Amino acid sequence: MADTIKVGMIGYKFMGKAHSNAYRQVAAFYDVPLRPEMTVICGRDKAGVSAAAEQMGWKEYSTDWKEVVGRPDIGLIDISTPGDTHYEIAMAAAQAGKNILCEKPLANTLDESRRMQEAVEQAGVVAMVNFNYRRVPAVQLAKQLIDAGRIGEIRHWRAVYLQDWIVDPEFPLVWRLQKDLAGSGALGDIGAHIADLARFLVGEIDEVCGLLKTFIKERPLPAATTGLSASASAERGQVTVDDAALFLARFASGAIGSFEATRFATGRRNRNSFEINGSRGSIVFDLERMNELQFYSADDPPEAQGFRTILVTEGVHTYMNAWWPPGHIIGWEHTFTHSVLDLLNGIVAKESPAPTFADGVHIQSILDAVERSAASGGWVRPE
Amino acid sequence: MADTIKVGMIGYKFMGKAHSNAYRQVAAFYDVPLRPEMTVICGRDKAGVSAAAEQMGWKEYSTDWKEVVGRPDIGLIDISTPGDTHYEIAMAAAQAGKNILCEKPLANTLDESRRMQEAVEQAGVVAMVNFNYRRVPAVQLAKQLIDAGRIGEIRHWRAVYLQDWIVDPEFPLVWRLQKDLAGSGALGDIGAHIADLARFLVGEIDEVCGLLKTFIKERPLPAATTGLSASASAERGQVTVDDAALFLARFASGAIGSFEATRFATGRRNRNSFEINGSRGSIVFDLERMNELQFYSADDPPEAQGFRTILVTEGVHTYMNAWWPPGHIIGWEHTFTHSVLDLLNGIVAKESPAPTFADGVHIQSILDAVERSAASGGWVRPE
Amino acid sequence: MADTIKVGMIGYKFMGKAHSNAYRQVAAFYDVPLRPEMTVICGRDKAGVSAAAEQMGWKEYSTDWKEVVGRPDIGLIDISTPGDTHYEIAMAAAQAGKNILCEKPLANTLDESRRMQEAVEQAGVVAMVNFNYRRVPAVQLAKQLIDAGRIGEIRHWRAVYLQDWIVDPEFPLVWRLQKDLAGSGALGDIGAHIADLARFLVGEIDEVCGLLKTFIKERPLPAATTGLSASASAERGQVTVDDAALFLARFASGAIGSFEATRFATGRRNRNSFEINGSRGSIVFDLERMNELQFYSADDPPEAQGFRTILVTEGVHTYMNAWWPPGHIIGWEHTFTHSVLDLLNGIVAKESPAPTFADGVHIQSILDAVERSAASGGWVRPE
Amino acid sequence: MADTIKVGMIGYKFMGKAHSNAYRQVAAFYDVPLRPEMTVICGRDKAGVSAAAEQMGWKEYSTDWKEVVGRPDIGLIDISTPGDTHYEIAMAAAQAGKNILCEKPLANTLDESRRMQEAVEQAGVVAMVNFNYRRVPAVQLAKQLIDAGRIGEIRHWRAVYLQDWIVDPEFPLVWRLQKDLAGSGALGDIGAHIADLARFLVGEIDEVCGLLKTFIKERPLPAATTGLSASASAERGQVTVDDAALFLARFASGAIGSFEATRFATGRRNRNSFEINGSRGSIVFDLERMNELQFYSADDPPEAQGFRTILVTEGVHTYMNAWWPPGHIIGWEHTFTHSVLDLLNGIVAKESPAPTFADGVHIQSILDAVERSAASGGWVRPE
Repeated sequence: MADTIKVGMIGYKFMGKAHSNAYRQVAAFYDVPLRPEMTVICGRDKAGVSAAAEQMGWKEYSTDWKEVVGRPDIGLIDISTPGDTHYEIAMAAAQAGKNILCEKPLANTLDESRRMQEAVEQAGVVAMVNFNYRRVPAVQLAKQLIDAGRIGEIRHWRAVYLQDWIVDPEFPLVWRLQKDLAGSGALGDIGAHIADLARFLVGEIDEVCGLLKTFIKERPLPAATTGLSASASAERGQVTVDDAALFLARFASGAIGSFEATRFATGRRNRNSFEINGSRGSIVFDLERMNELQFYSADDPPEAQGFRTILVTEGVHTYMNAWWPPGHIIGWEHTFTHSVLDLLNGIVAKESPAPTFADGVHIQSILDAVERSAASGGWVRPE
Repeated sequence: MADTIKVGMIGYKFMGKAHSNAYRQVAAFYDVPLRPEMTVICGRDKAGVSAAAEQMGWKEYSTDWKEVVGRPDIGLIDISTPGDTHYEIAMAAAQAGKNILCEKPLANTLDESRRMQEAVEQAGVVAMVNFNYRRVPAVQLAKQLIDAGRIGEIRHWRAVYLQDWIVDPEFPLVWRLQKDLAGSGALGDIGAHIADLARFLVGEIDEVCGLLKTFIKERPLPAATTGLSASASAERGQVTVDDAALFLARFASGAIGSFEATRFATGRRNRNSFEINGSRGSIVFDLERMNELQFYSADDPPEAQGFRTILVTEGVHTYMNAWWPPGHIIGWEHTFTHSVLDLLNGIVAKESPAPTFADGVHIQSILDAVERSAASGGWVRPE
Repeated sequence: MADTIKVGMIGYKFMGKAHSNAYRQVAAFYDVPLRPEMTVICGRDKAGVSAAAEQMGWKEYSTDWKEVVGRPDIGLIDISTPGDTHYEIAMAAAQAGKNILCEKPLANTLDESRRMQEAVEQAGVVAMVNFNYRRVPAVQLAKQLIDAGRIGEIRHWRAVYLQDWIVDPEFPLVWRLQKDLAGSGALGDIGAHIADLARFLVGEIDEVCGLLKTFIKERPLPAATTGLSASASAERGQVTVDDAALFLARFASGAIGSFEATRFATGRRNRNSFEINGSRGSIVFDLERMNELQFYSADDPPEAQGFRTILVTEGVHTYMNAWWPPGHIIGWEHTFTHSVLDLLNGIVAKESPAPTFADGVHIQSILDAVERSAASGGWVRPE
Repeated sequence: MADTIKVGMIGYKFMGKAHSNAYRQVAAFYDVPLRPEMTVICGRDKAGVSAAAEQMGWKEYSTDWKEVVGRPDIGLIDISTPGDTHYEIAMAAAQAGKNILCEKPLANTLDESRRMQEAVEQAGVVAMVNFNYRRVPAVQLAKQLIDAGRIGEIRHWRAVYLQDWIVDPEFPLVWRLQKDLAGSGALGDIGAHIADLARFLVGEIDEVCGLLKTFIKERPLPAATTGLSASASAERGQVTVDDAALFLARFASGAIGSFEATRFATGRRNRNSFEINGSRGSIVFDLERMNELQFYSADDPPEAQGFRTILVTEGVHTYMNAWWPPGHIIGWEHTFTHSVLDLLNGIVAKESPAPTFADGVHIQSILDAVERSAASGGWVRPE
């Protein structure tokens, strides 16, 4: 019977719900070396967090994150809060010697993220930033095909992350639309994901050149929020983040790429999609059909070449052996379960699984470079 | 805080895993009127069932189903075993006054299924047969569109359930290929699902005419099995069920339909797909893309008519409000969670949710009619 | 410079337009051994046929098909009229020693078609029945993949030909809805095409069992017709053909199949689609995307299996070298150009290209068997 | 009976073949106000051009374009040659008072294109530059939906033109890879098309910022060429054009856009695809499926929103009434037929149809701006 690790989770809304599910599910499907105990969940609103604890299966709740981080029985601190609080919580958790799972992006500024990286490295704790889309089985397959040389030398990366949840100008000014809380808009929220996928699959980025755009500059203040939903009040406030971010990139390898993140792609609910073209093949992925990967191989016979749609649900596919028979698809939330699985293995092995905080810093430096490029109107190297 | 109901589950393999997940998850996402307690799981193999209990979160295990059915604390008996045992367990559970969730098909023969229906009706227990695909949100949407008259009068039903897991002639003779255990082959295993969907969406079937086919008549006996996987031994045995079943149907409404269930559709892992054509519109569904529904409306303007792909992940879609934001897809296993949700509501309301055992009998009578038609070579009315 | 052959074409509407295009285009793209001269076009309505001659590029027109067939300079008679006239024209043309291209289906009855076959064989002329969908390059590729064993032993054939042009009950009673002119409805018009594709790709059919359905039994008489379009008059008449035809089949090879032809599939304009499952692979085609073929190969590595979408526009694909660069798709009418190309080669080689009149008879015998099965309610062997 | 206009066409290879087809076909399908006579075709290679004349149906051939332009009987000069010759031919044709159809891009430099515009305007001739993809019926439908406000205010333009015909480093250095003949590489060849579509559908571009990339810097010299195909010699030469061009853009309307043109997208034969997101809807097009348009409308009911795939083959769709019944798709070459149709109408009306030479200049200025941006590394306004 596996040892256990007690988890303290800060944050209980959208990400809190997804992380809770992962802790509840991981040992029911995988042979984990360490069973996570859902010990304490933490949030500022007592009524909200106590109800969340009850519904999602946490033993206790707290309204004081410092108390949670300070508890000697807790082995893992999970940071599922908005970006403006990541820094303070992570610094405290590292100092307290806790292992950490931190939602992305790592921090709201490049500088903060660097100090967080230093802190966890000095503390010697296992720490991971949760760019969960690396752990979609189809994305893992993409990585394997690339590493095995199946698409040859990569020439092109072409990624979009398209959403449409704020197309309505009356959609209220939730925290994700406020720079002081969210750091940035589409860029940091969803652009960060495709930047992480680009580094994971194609490699380091040398230079970027891009633009940021805010289509709707003023919105009603929110009256109340639940997850991504919110009702509007009569007062209005300034939108201080980007609605859309586009940038071009030159990779260290010689490949070139384009990135687009927007919340104004009407009809695209959650289209996180990339295409990679190599000298011998190509790969296409779309999160809305996350159980599929398209793969083109120039090694197929000339009369029978084409993009094949692989249903990534076989036992041979990473993470899939634990779930259901072939063709029985899995849902979005399992990307978190896979993250937790690898984190637990990392904790036992005393090695931070990728994406580490160092990876988180790299992403932050890319986002920062995009913002500087948007301001300067030219090409900028991530620092 | 909700009351609880103690569950005793018979069977712990493929279906047992899916049902366990539903009991573990339902209250974490839905406001249930009754919380299921995962009290006892039952199977013949002590090592197997005890490991399953441990991994899947059951408090106790048992190797004696009669003992489980006899326990006074148990309020719900879940039958997740192969079809040959459904009858005996369900009869005992009904006599013991237990509510029942029974995997499909209800029984291996029409006669057994009828007696099961009588038993639960006499006992006054809540009983449901788990044709889980009714509870895919996209299928629920199909039903709503039809009921709202959005596709008009239905003319055509066209359904296939295509799998390919026994294409290899050396795939061993697992229980699903043995008539005494499974009742029938593709017909009862997957054909039953599309028959249930046809009744749910189009209505009663008056007549069928079909064929059954066994492509591979002899297979190696299994050495050991795990879920759908199995290794082969040197000995061989007769395949006693159909590999494929095709039939045409006339519905009571005047619509006509075709059905095909096969385990020999190379490349189709789990394609449970239907198309419905009505006088004003059409609907298409495919389980491999179960978060999508295609809908064509003749009411669209002439220049802009076409099949639209609806991503059935909105809050307005049945069952979806509890899960994730729009565009964040759910997996196959949640069909079971939805079944359990509705069953729990049914238990509180003391009303068996559809598909009831009476529905199960109807399906059994259709399968029986197909078998008789295949034998006689003509049209047969379900009894 | 190639020799020429003078063509006399009977019929000038939908099929006449498609055939005219083929004669006008074939030598501009292919190196033909014989250049077709568009000598005379024939129809009953003088105004109509003279305008058609002018627009479509025929040198002369005639209103008397017997005169055309009797002209000594004409080397090829093209029969593009409704089915009730095929017999008389083809018999006369064969007697006059003319080569023949006859639209499908060959005749309105099995008996007529047999006499037509005998006549052309006795006359020693080259004769072809124009099941044009054999000559879609993607269908040719399907044939090549099958012949090369790429999908192994065929188990399943699954074909639909879905249209929706008479869903409106007020669509008038055009000739295609009258048994004395059209022979049958969806069965002979579009079901004949998928029957021909089944024979071409899978082989001979041993037995069929099916149903015919007429949803709308009475319609307004047409006031005037243009191609498939027509306006309605106030009077009404009986629909004497099937709106839909469904049948199951057993192939001589042991494969089993399903066929559906309907004019009531709302939203499906011209979906002539088939799927073939073999022991090692599968193939899918859809005429609405006729430049594509889907192909699944079980020989692909286990982690990278999937249906690939082949864009059948390469120089290596049959017929495609003459058209445009890869990825530049061709249209529906080129199936006719390909038929004429092969016919011209056949005339020079003095060998009737498939589908020959013998093939046409086979299809007629299948249609006849389906009609008998629909009447008797059981399995019927094509005679 | 329509009047006629005598055409002299310069160039006889890929574009010459496509244009010839358009002249041969247009009057057979459309009621033209002026019938084009295929009078003379011109090329430098006597054997090549005489064979082309013979095969494609031109009455005469010439090896001297000046002689053709100087013929008094010729009313329309068609320029289907590589870009480096457009200027000289067009200037002479304008001076000679001929109407002109010029292949895109208009010229190899912005300056040349401006002088061509002036020349045709001064001469008062009808002149058109053939950005043929405006005349895909699905693109016309996109335009109509936009103009009717069906997608609201446009926010995003996202276009790629992906090809893969020079992925192989041994593919020879054909004229399209030489700057002095082709002007630029992917940018001018295919990037020009998506720039034209952007202007047509979204409007004027204020600023661009982009990059050009040449992946393979040296290639074998061609031994012989046929259309896009060529064999390689042992000698090698420098590739002097871009293999790929990417740029971002700000539209005058406030919309933002991304553009990518590449010949290195392995597996993408001819994927000219765009997506437009507006405040109320979205549109998607892909040339490889050119008979389809995807359309999303936020005006659909909340539970039934999705991208619908419109098969743009109805009589109500622009240009389609002349072709085949619904669902019978047309091929790539008909975009040229539609261009010629509109040009003939323009000649009769004495009005140059769009895209005019002024439009050609606009595109040239955008290409020029992209090249300057790629050199300077910043945002550049088209002049």
